[in-house]
This record gives sequence, structure tokens and C-alpha cells, in this order.
Amino acid sequence: MVGHGEEEPVYEIAVAVPKRRAKEGDESEDCVEVLVEEFRKVGLITERVVGIADEFIKLAAPLEILGRTAAELRMKKPTHIGMDLQFEWEDVHAFVRQPDGSLFSWCERFHFYRHLIYGIVNKSRSDIILKWDAKEIHWEPGEPLLQRLESESIVKQVFPIHVEAKRKELLGSWALNWLDFTRQPIDDIYLYFGTKIAVYFAFLGMYTRWMMFPAGLGLISQLIDFGPFQFLVLPIFFVCITLWAVVFFQFWKRKNSALLTRWQISYSVGADPGYDLGYKLSGKEWSSIQSPVEIARKEEQDRSKDKEKFQREEWFGAFLRIRNDAIVILSIICLQLPFELAYAHLYEVVESDVIKFGLTAIYLVLIQHFTRIGGKVSVQLINHERNVSREYRADSLVYKVFGLYFMQSYIGLFYHALLHRNFMTLRQVLIQRLIISEVLENLWENSFPYLKYSYKKHKVRKKKRCEKGSTRGRIQFASRVEKEYLKPSYSASIGDELEDGLFDDFLELALQFGMIMMFACAFPLAFAFAALNNITEIRTDALKLLVMMKRPVPRAAVTIGAWLNIFQFLIVMSICTNSALLCIYDQEGKWKIEPGLAAILVMEHVLLLIKFGVSRFVPEEPAWVRAHRVKNATQAQDVCSKQLLRTISAGEKLFLEATKDD
Amino acid sequence: MVGHGEEEPVYEIAVAVPKRRAKEGDESEDCVEVLVEEFRKVGLITERVVGIADEFIKLAAPLEILGRTAAELRMKKPTHIGMDLQFEWEDVHAFVRQPDGSLFSWCERFHFYRHLIYGIVNKSRSDIILKWDAKEIHWEPGEPLLQRLESESIVKQVFPIHVEAKRKELLGSWALNWLDFTRQPIDDIYLYFGTKIAVYFAFLGMYTRWMMFPAGLGLISQLIDFGPFQFLVLPIFFVCITLWAVVFFQFWKRKNSALLTRWQISYSVGADPGYDLGYKLSGKEWSSIQSPVEIARKEEQDRSKDKEKFQREEWFGAFLRIRNDAIVILSIICLQLPFELAYAHLYEVVESDVIKFGLTAIYLVLIQHFTRIGGKVSVQLINHERNVSREYRADSLVYKVFGLYFMQSYIGLFYHALLHRNFMTLRQVLIQRLIISEVLENLWENSFPYLKYSYKKHKVRKKKRCEKGSTRGRIQFASRVEKEYLKPSYSASIGDELEDGLFDDFLELALQFGMIMMFACAFPLAFAFAALNNITEIRTDALKLLVMMKRPVPRAAVTIGAWLNIFQFLIVMSICTNSALLCIYDQEGKWKIEPGLAAILVMEHVLLLIKFGVSRFVPEEPAWVRAHRVKNATQAQDVCSKQLLRTISAGEKLFLEATKDD
Repeated sequence: MVGHGEEEPVYEIAVAVPKRRAKEGDESEDCVEVLVEEFRKVGLITERVVGIADEFIKLAAPLEILGRTAAELRMKKPTHIGMDLQFEWEDVHAFVRQPDGSLFSWCERFHFYRHLIYGIVNKSRSDIILKWDAKEIHWEPGEPLLQRLESESIVKQVFPIHVEAKRKELLGSWALNWLDFTRQPIDDIYLYFGTKIAVYFAFLGMYTRWMMFPAGLGLISQLIDFGPFQFLVLPIFFVCITLWAVVFFQFWKRKNSALLTRWQISYSVGADPGYDLGYKLSGKEWSSIQSPVEIARKEEQDRSKDKEKFQREEWFGAFLRIRNDAIVILSIICLQLPFELAYAHLYEVVESDVIKFGLTAIYLVLIQHFTRIGGKVSVQLINHERNVSREYRADSLVYKVFGLYFMQSYIGLFYHALLHRNFMTLRQVLIQRLIISEVLENLWENSFPYLKYSYKKHKVRKKKRCEKGSTRGRIQFASRVEKEYLKPSYSASIGDELEDGLFDDFLELALQFGMIMMFACAFPLAFAFAALNNITEIRTDALKLLVMMKRPVPRAAVTIGAWLNIFQFLIVMSICTNSALLCIYDQEGKWKIEPGLAAILVMEHVLLLIKFGVSRFVPEEPAWVRAHRVKNATQAQDVCSKQLLRTISAGEKLFLEATKDD
Repeated sequence: MVGHGEEEPVYEIAVAVPKRRAKEGDESEDCVEVLVEEFRKVGLITERVVGIADEFIKLAAPLEILGRTAAELRMKKPTHIGMDLQFEWEDVHAFVRQPDGSLFSWCERFHFYRHLIYGIVNKSRSDIILKWDAKEIHWEPGEPLLQRLESESIVKQVFPIHVEAKRKELLGSWALNWLDFTRQPIDDIYLYFGTKIAVYFAFLGMYTRWMMFPAGLGLISQLIDFGPFQFLVLPIFFVCITLWAVVFFQFWKRKNSALLTRWQISYSVGADPGYDLGYKLSGKEWSSIQSPVEIARKEEQDRSKDKEKFQREEWFGAFLRIRNDAIVILSIICLQLPFELAYAHLYEVVESDVIKFGLTAIYLVLIQHFTRIGGKVSVQLINHERNVSREYRADSLVYKVFGLYFMQSYIGLFYHALLHRNFMTLRQVLIQRLIISEVLENLWENSFPYLKYSYKKHKVRKKKRCEKGSTRGRIQFASRVEKEYLKPSYSASIGDELEDGLFDDFLELALQFGMIMMFACAFPLAFAFAALNNITEIRTDALKLLVMMKRPVPRAAVTIGAWLNIFQFLIVMSICTNSALLCIYDQEGKWKIEPGLAAILVMEHVLLLIKFGVSRFVPEEPAWVRAHRVKNATQAQDVCSKQLLRTISAGEKLFLEATKDD
């Protein structure tokens, strides 16, 4: 056997169902009993835990079940010779294992669990009648049982659960290990949370480490008096931090690709979203067992038809995307901009502190609403786009929503900068914003989930007490799984359709980056603040994931995606804003810029932006060329993969035996 | 048999040897006889042509010989199922043919010819003594015969020769087909001249076609009076042509990749130079027959060592490249810039036309020299770089030398623009430059090779006459191959080590593009001039290749390479220069720009340039990651390719037979 996994079952998924008052009648028709029975039939190991308010079915899958699911899903995995081949349970020795020795990554396992439990369908020809207390449920032929039960609210939630041993280990080596500053056990995080979260923390760590340089520079520029060269300090600081940012992101890309290679994840350069397309295409074609030559023949005939179809789809897709982007940009400029400017202006004009406070309160409530509406509208728009993969759609959402947040966070500052033309007051506003936003943000981020969790616990206790009829006696939550069930899930503030909690974490980083970079010349010390904040951010985010929240659903994305482009955009913006700051402020209003000149400068910058942005809208490869290329690459791996697998696997077995004898 | 190629032999290569006065002694030891005999032994078909001054051995290769050479070189070719597999002569049916039905492209055939004729070595253990007139030549064991004879000047040249039928066809359908304007038979050009030249003409055609838009716009902006909105005409024109240029190059990239897909050339996006590296690596490893598992095992152990090695090499390579670039940039700024400024200044200051003329003459002679020296220094520098492939080194040369030409062509114009601050005189200078440079360039380009050719013919005739002792009687060149031998070869003005004549053609295009784009606001009509010029350029360049020159040696590059980046750079420059022109000129010197403001603007632009240029210096993938990835991709195709081939080939044969019966 394949070693490992034959010890104690590791429960990773839980299904929450309501607790029954009493058992009655025939158990074999009870839908929860049926569900558990079906779980057992597909090979899952189950454990039932009765909590205070609900009952939970914990699930674990033996390695063989996972392996067979992988083969059924025609999944590809890297083998020892470096190629990705289709997984076969018989040739399991041929495949490379994870750093901790397990065969499948957490993301893969989660995918298999879902496939297994949502794949339970009624295989008979007639309805099966299930019972729930007094209610009868008709399980139609071919219908997935879990979906049916979810729609009847009998299955309340399916959620991944923490593996206590590993969680404790990570808690010690990562979340509570404050002395390590920016170092983190990234490989362990990857194994426990999957790629996307590991990449976030790798980025956060590297970003904080690199932040030491501008933080130091900022301190020096503020603390030391350079005498006659004082006027050069800010321009030099500006040049240095710009270079720093440019070089940092280039090195981040290198680090990201190195990480993926270490984790044995094959990826295409530039995170080509077409890869998914190619995968599906070939999967479909090769599933029917045809001779390769016949397929090739058919393809050659279809090629011109295919090409036309691809071209039509490509242009229609581009049109939809541009239309949606135009809608978003226009609505931000026409609806949000006036609102933000009005608030900024009122805040500047009003003198009474009380009114200011009230104004801010109203403003905060309103933008909460606006952001939520913006998020929903964006999701609606994206659903009408033709994006290929889920992660691509998530990226599209991030771009759209970031526009909103960008206006929200910076328009007031820009207004202030233009109105007052004075470094000192701008600096004050910046300090206020930075400290308040970061402190509040961190407090909110960490206390809100806890409050939510406490409230939920309280509600359950209260309910229990009502049932018991007594108001005395503390009710303890004995089962870990029920506690986890009550914890809030790791979801995004803009709705959890496409993004999870990482959205907020990245948003915070990006807004901070924009703030410190765009106004670097006004407040060089901001970098030191940010560095300090990020060091704590690493540990608090880790704590949040390990203690405060449900274990997040793993995501497949292997890069920081849209955020990278947003950071790059912020660098370009910061070059422009810092130049403007230097121009506006340096001689305290002595320099005059003619409106014509200003218009030309603005036009120049817009053109430069278009020059460098156009590649996002018009890809360098026509869609049919890409599809053709990707298909070839995929075919190359599909063809005769089985035979090869057997060879590798046999060789590997021999090697293992040989090393055992030593 | 494989049809085709069994008819008349198509001679594509010629070897020039001096003509002997009289035959004497044993012919079997005569080195030319031996050479011809050896050519026949490797399977080439030979024909000897005796010209007036020299003798020629024309060579043709039957398809089977080429096929076996391809298999020997372990070449990869696309097959009918879309994968690239290693070529095997036995399974020839599995491979996709060229659009004209031939199996190998001209570039591949040329490569095989070279491999065959330079692969003739002395296989015996002792020197073979060859005779040449009275001289004795020792052919050492293991020494290539052709190299030996070349070093003794017995083989004067090995050159590709025109295939008369195809040349005439192209002459009619392409070079003399003026009515087609920008349309060209690109596929035929590809088949006859190879990718690089076909891509050049495809680019030239598309560029000229797209040029119609700004040409029309320029005409409209000059001919129509917009009354009160006249002041908006130039800014709008500027915006339009910038957008035009940006969109054009994006669409050119798409067209290029579509062309390559049509020609069945597999390529990696972004023309990754690492591809060659991966190819060699895997070629080496798989040539020793080892089990894949053993190799994988070994590799895993070596990986960390490999990674270190790659990292060291990568950084050292980057250091060398940056050092060389710094040398080139510094020497251009410190040596060339003062010289060019001095000339521009003197030309402006001097009033006498005679002195001006003399000055220009001296200047022209000097820059000829400087350019040549610059080219040589660049080649020297590049030889110390660690560029992977030949085409990558050629690109490196193009970047370095273009810096020189950029200064040469535009510094005078910039100087003039800044000095006079007047649209009218700048426009005059531009017209002079454009017309003179383009007309002169075209004349020179077309007459110089002809003059050279005539002079060579004349010299041969004179020599002949001297031998005969008579000064009367016209001597006719009866053999085509001798005429071709006398024609100049298609080589670059900066030396033919890394680049061929395409360098000059592209340079002309790039300088023209820079001229019309960077000063677009000063002279919108320039686009119309350029469009006219390019229409003639297409046909004259075609004539040059088909009539004036030897058939060029085919090159493997599949994109326009470095030139694309140069064009992109010129677009960015043009955005800045046009903005500057509009600023400086619009209100005729009324606007004043403080020096501090100007300094900040310059700094901003330099930073933006760095932001967008840094990816050229720091690749997004570490070298070891790329090597790993490329190796995997190559292995995927190498493994079990033979077996697959047989399947495809068998299926293809059946299909062919079936279609024959229909």
C-alpha cells in the first residue's frame, strides 16, 4: 500500500445538519441516515458529532478514494520525469509528492471531496422518499442528494474543518512566532491553506522585508539636516523609492515563479487564462477514444471554421469587457467623484467639530452602502462577460471594485493637496488617515469576527436555555466542530461570490501602498509606519486564519493576480503625483503653470497611460492562435501518457525497494 | 516514394572554385575532383559549370538525403496531430508539409546542405595528399575538406543560388506587380526566402496599409481650415496618430503570431531565447540512452547545484550586459553627442553655402567611419556577452547600433527645434531631410549594388581580355551561376557578422518612423510622404532581393525582434517630443517654464521610462525556473516520440490511399 493515510483518519470536511429532538419511526428512511450511508458507500470515513444546537457529520477520505477520484476527473499531476501526466491510481509511484509526503495538495483534496459528496445521485429510476421529522422529501432520479437537502435547509452548511494537530503546529511556528519578524513557514502554509493564501503571505513577508529600505531612508531624510542640499532631499527620496518599488515588483514576480516551481505547480508565464480553455477543449476531445490521426484530420477541416468562431467570440468578448469597463469608469466619475468631492469640500469648509463628526459619520455609513452596491453591480456585469476561468472573473471584479476604493481613499487627499498647497497640513491629514485607518482597520479586522462568533455562541446558548427552561448554568461547547461552525467564514466585504477574505487583506495592502507611495514626498516617515504595521499584520492575519475564522476554502490561483497590476498602476500614479507635489509645493506657489501647458501635460500622461495599457485590451495573440497552441501543448502530454506512466512507476518502485534494502 | 523531388534536381547551393588553365597529371588527386566525388558520396547531385573566370559546382539534394540529415540532426517537426516530434525518415507521412507541398522549409534545407557539405571529413587515419595545379595540400584526418580548401582559397565561396523558375514567378507576382500596392504573396516569399525576410515584407506591407490613415489625416489637417478651432487641430492630430501607432503595433504582434501559426512554426510567446537552451540541454541528455527514471533521479539530486549554477550565470550575464550597455550609452553621450551638436551648431552659424557644403561633406565621411567603428565595437562587446542564440545576439547588436543612428538622425533636428522655436523653419528642415534622405537612400540602395556588380563584371572581362591578349570582342557571361556569383551579397552596412541586409532595410523604416512620429505636430504631411515612399519601397526591396543580389542566406528568426521594441520606444519618445513641441511652439514663446519645473518633468519622464523598461533587464522568471520549465516541455515531446510517430504515419498512409481510390 501507499504508506501514510492508513493511520488515524484525518477529518477535513464537515456537514452541518439540525439536531433532532427525538428519534422516531424507521431510521432507514431518515434523510440524514441515508446521507451518512451514501457517504460510506462512496468510501468516505464518517464520524457523527452531536453538538448543542446542531449535529455534524465529519468526513475523511482514505488515500485510495482520493486517488480514484483523481483518475475519474482525469486530473494531471507532475511525475518524477517532470512531465504532467494524467493520474492513474495503479501507477501512483510515478507521481511527485507534496513536500510533506502526501500525494494530493489541500486544494486538490478539497476538490475531490466536493466531487464525491455532490456526486451522490439517485441512481434508481423512481423517486426515493426520505423523511425528516414529519416532512417527506422526494429525491428525484439523477438529482444530487446534497443539493436537494441543502435546498430543504436540512444540510445547513458544508465547510472545511481545521486539522487540530497541524493547526496547533502552525500556531506555534507561525502565528505566535513574533520574533521571526517577516520570516514565515511558507511551505507549511501552502500545505495547510493552499496556494492563494500562501502566495499572499509570501508577498506580505517579502513586501515587509523590502519595506525596511524606504523606511530607513525616510527616517534619515527626516532626522538629518543636509544644510545647503536640503532642497535635494525630497527629489532624491522620490527617485529612490520609485526605483525601489519598480525593482521590488520585478523581484516579486521572480519569487512567485520560484515558489511555484518549488511546489511543483506547472503554470504558464503571464498566467495565461487561456490555459483553462485548452484544458477543457482537449479533455473533451480525448475523452472519446479516437485515433489521433482521425482527430487531426477532422481538425484540419474544421480549422478555418474554428478560426472564424474564435475570432467572433474574441471580438464579442472584448466588446463586452470594454463596455463594462466603460460603465464602471463612467459611473465612478459621474456618481462617486462628485459625492466624494462634496464631502471633502464640506469637511474643509465646516468649522464646528461637532458637525464635522456628524458629517463623517453620515459619510461612513453612505460609503459602506455604496461599496456594497458597487460590488453587486460589478458582479452582475462580470456575469455577463465571457471570462474563461473563475480566477479570471475574480480578477475582473478586483479591477472594477478597486476603482471605487481608489476614489474613496485618495480623492479627499488630492483635493486637500490642491486646495492648500502646503506640505504641513497635507502631512497632518496623512498622519491622521494612516494611523486611524490602520489602527481601526486592524482592530475591526480582529475584533469583528470575534464579536460575531461570541454573538452566535450567545444565541445558541440562549436558545438552549429556553429549551431547557432554566436560565442558570453555563453551557459549554464540547465539540470543536461546532465551535468552528459558529465561527465566521473567511469572506470578502464585497460579497463572497467570487472573492474571499483575501480581497480585504490585499485591498488593505494596496491602499496602504498607494497612500505611502503617492504622497511619499509629503511624508517620508509613512514608510516606517507602514513597515511597523505590516510586521504586526503578518501575525494578526495568521491568527485570524488559524483562530478567528473557519478554515477557508482553498483557491487555485497561483499568483497575486489582478493586485500585481494594481500595484504597478499605483507606482505609475505615484511617479506622477510626486512630481506634481514637488512642482506645486517646492517654491510655495511661486511657479505658475499656464492652463494650456497643464492641458498638454495631462494629455501627454493620458497618452503614455494608453500606450502602456493597451496590451491589456488587445492581447498579442489572436484567440484562435492561442487555442491552437495550447491544444498542441496539451495533446503532447495526453498522447500515450498511460504507457509512459507505467514505465516511470515501475522504475520508481524498483528504486524504492533498492533504497529500502540499503 | 514520397513523390516530388524525383523530377529534375533543383540546384540551390553553389561552390565557386578558380578555373584551371589546363588539366595535367592524375585527376584522381585533384582536389576539386575529390571534392565533387565526396559530394556525390554523401548523396548530393552535382553539376559543374565552367564560367569565364571561375568554375562552379552546383549542388542539389534529393529529398531522402535531406530527410536522413534531418533525422541525424534530431530535428523536430510538427506532425499531423499538432505535436512537434523528432523527425524520422521512415515515418515521413506523419509530418506536416509546407504550403507548397515540400517537406522542408528553405531555412531547414539550407541548414542541411551546410551540415552535409561541411561534414565531409577525412575518415582515414593518415593525411590524404591533394593536388592543386602544382601545389600539394595535406588533408589531415578528421578535418572537414571544405574548410581546408576554403583556407587555401581554392573554394572561393559557398553561396545559395536562385531557383530560376521560382524567381521568375516571384518577379511577376511580386516585384513587378506594382498595381497590388501593399498586397504581396507572403506565403511564396516565405517559401523562397525563409521566415525572417517574409516577416519583414509582411510588416512593411501592413505598415504601409495602416499608414494610409495618418496620411489622410495629415492631408486633411493641412488642407482644411477649421476656423476658430484651428488651435485644436494639432493636438487632436497628435492624439490620433499616437493611438494609431499604439494600436498598429499591437495588431502587428497578432498578425505575426497568426502568420507563424499558418506556417506551422511553433514558437514561444515573447520569443523566449531560453528555448534554444532547453533544446540543447535535452538533446544532450536524451542522446545517451538512459531510462527516464534514472535521469529524473539524478536530476533531483543535481537540482540544487543546478539552481546555484544557473543563478550565478544569470547574474554574471546580467552584469556583463548592463556593463556593455553602459559603455555604449556613455560613449554615445560623451563622444557622439558633442560631435553631432558641434556639426549642427556650425551648420546653423555658418552663412556661406560653400562652407556649409564642405562641412556636410566632411561630416558625411566622418559619420560613415564612426558608424563602422561603432558597429565593430558593438560586435566585440556582444562577443563578450553570454547570449544564448545567434538571433538574440543579433538583437543585442541592433539595440546598440540603433543608439548611434538615433543620435545621428535626430540630434540636429532637436537642436534646431530648441534653437529656433519656430514651426516653419523646423518644417523646412524636416522636408529637406525626409525627401533627401529617402530619395538618396532609395537611389543608393538600388544603384550601388548594380554599380558594384557592373564593376566586378568589368574586372572579370578585363582580366579575360588580358589573358586572351585582345582588347576587342564583347565577352558574354553565359552561365547564370557566374552572374550570381558576381552579384553583391545581401549584407548589412555595419558588417555581416550577425546581421544581413535586413538590418539596413529595418533601420530605414525605423528612422523614417521616428522622423514622422516625433515631429508629427511640426509637419503632418510627412505621413503622406512616408506612405508614398513605402509603397515604392516594397517593390524596390523586392527587386533588390530578386535581381540585384545573391540569394540571401535564410535566417531562423520568426519575429521582427529588436526592431519591435525600437518602434515602441520611438512611440514613447514621440509622445514626449510632440508634447514638448506643442508646449514650446504653440504660443510662440509666451509660455515660460521655470528650470526647476523642467528638471522635475525630466526626472518624472526618466522614472516612467525606468518603470516600463526594467522588465528588459530583470526577467520575470529566474533562469533556473525557466530552464526547468523548458526542459519539462521538451521532455514531454521527446519521450516515446518514435512510437507515436509510427501510429500517425500509418494512419496517414491509410488515409492517403483511401483518398487516392476516391
